[in-house]
Amino acid sequence: MTGKFIVVEGLEGAGKSSAIASIVTHLQAKNIAATTVREPGGTPLAEALRELVKQDWAEPVHANTELLIMYASRVQLVENVIKPALQQGTWVIADRHDLSSRAYQGGGRQLGDGKLQVLKQQVLGSFGPDLTLLIDVDPKLGLERARTRGALDRIEQEDLSFFERTRARYLELAEADRSIHVIDGGQSMEAVHRDLLACVEAELFR
Amino acid sequence: MTGKFIVVEGLEGAGKSSAIASIVTHLQAKNIAATTVREPGGTPLAEALRELVKQDWAEPVHANTELLIMYASRVQLVENVIKPALQQGTWVIADRHDLSSRAYQGGGRQLGDGKLQVLKQQVLGSFGPDLTLLIDVDPKLGLERARTRGALDRIEQEDLSFFERTRARYLELAEADRSIHVIDGGQSMEAVHRDLLACVEAELFR
Repeated sequence: MTGKFIVVEGLEGAGKSSAIASIVTHLQAKNIAATTVREPGGTPLAEALRELVKQDWAEPVHANTELLIMYASRVQLVENVIKPALQQGTWVIADRHDLSSRAYQGGGRQLGDGKLQVLKQQVLGSFGPDLTLLIDVDPKLGLERARTRGALDRIEQEDLSFFERTRARYLELAEADRSIHVIDGGQSMEAVHRDLLACVEAELFR
Repeated sequence: MTGKFIVVEGLEGAGKSSAIASIVTHLQAKNIAATTVREPGGTPLAEALRELVKQDWAEPVHANTELLIMYASRVQLVENVIKPALQQGTWVIADRHDLSSRAYQGGGRQLGDGKLQVLKQQVLGSFGPDLTLLIDVDPKLGLERARTRGALDRIEQEDLSFFERTRARYLELAEADRSIHVIDGGQSMEAVHRDLLACVEAELFR
């Protein structure tokens, strides 16, 4: 039996980490083996790429460079961790996946969605999640929450308009794809988790 | 006045470094400002990516990952070093460029040429060299020369058939593109340099 691949998406401070913990607890109560991954990263090479893409550089980091590093990390994670886990029947819950590139690099960095879809098809083919949960949050609220966690990385230091474009692209993509479910991240954590788990139940345990 | 972009290509041990030195000397004698670059690498971030792609990893490094890292490095080098130099009228002589990906990842790693052309178009558009000099060498001879220089990196450790596929793809691509000139790298260094400089003269100083 093949595992299911669930992706949790959203801006910094949307509450993805606690959402993922709540999904894992929910699955374990059903005796479903589940593992978690985060992007970029998740293998030794992918983690090294994560460091490079998040650190500050004296030179400009071009949007296409950032995009290619994100996909390099994603290919390693998909091929070396996610696919093998799913094949063994383990469910995989991911903190970010392809939709993050479409929202951040495609929307935030304004590379457009066409280029992203072409690139994704070339390096990952039709591989994708069974369910995507997008926790939508106002960037001002999300960044405020993220700031309380510590220093912001190179991408988190972008101005508010970058995150507004990213959020808008997230919502546009969700509108066009029925496998992406939007959860209101402005609610209490309890309400967010209730909505998330209701969605997991409705979509994967019908 | 815009500088010219000359790329020197070939397998390990083809003699690219001494060829580049000879071209630079030739240009300087004509009072042409020239700078050299090598791929992957050439900016702080691109050099960090070079380290990652060349080192040994306990996990498999997927061909698509390798490809994406090569292009990430190339975008940084083109945007931050090569284009600004050319715009200032400085000629750029490069040790490897896009043709290396088409030969090594497209041919050696058998990713095919179509994917490479799609990817290149998405991240670099129509940017490319004014002249490419491919120093063709038998992989056995090239690897023997490379081994005398020191320890081989992750890619250089591939078996002979990998380099035979890479050489064959190099020659196929040169056959199909009149801007790629093949120089016989089995000759003496003096003869190789004579042929290279004759080609530079014929193509760029007509």
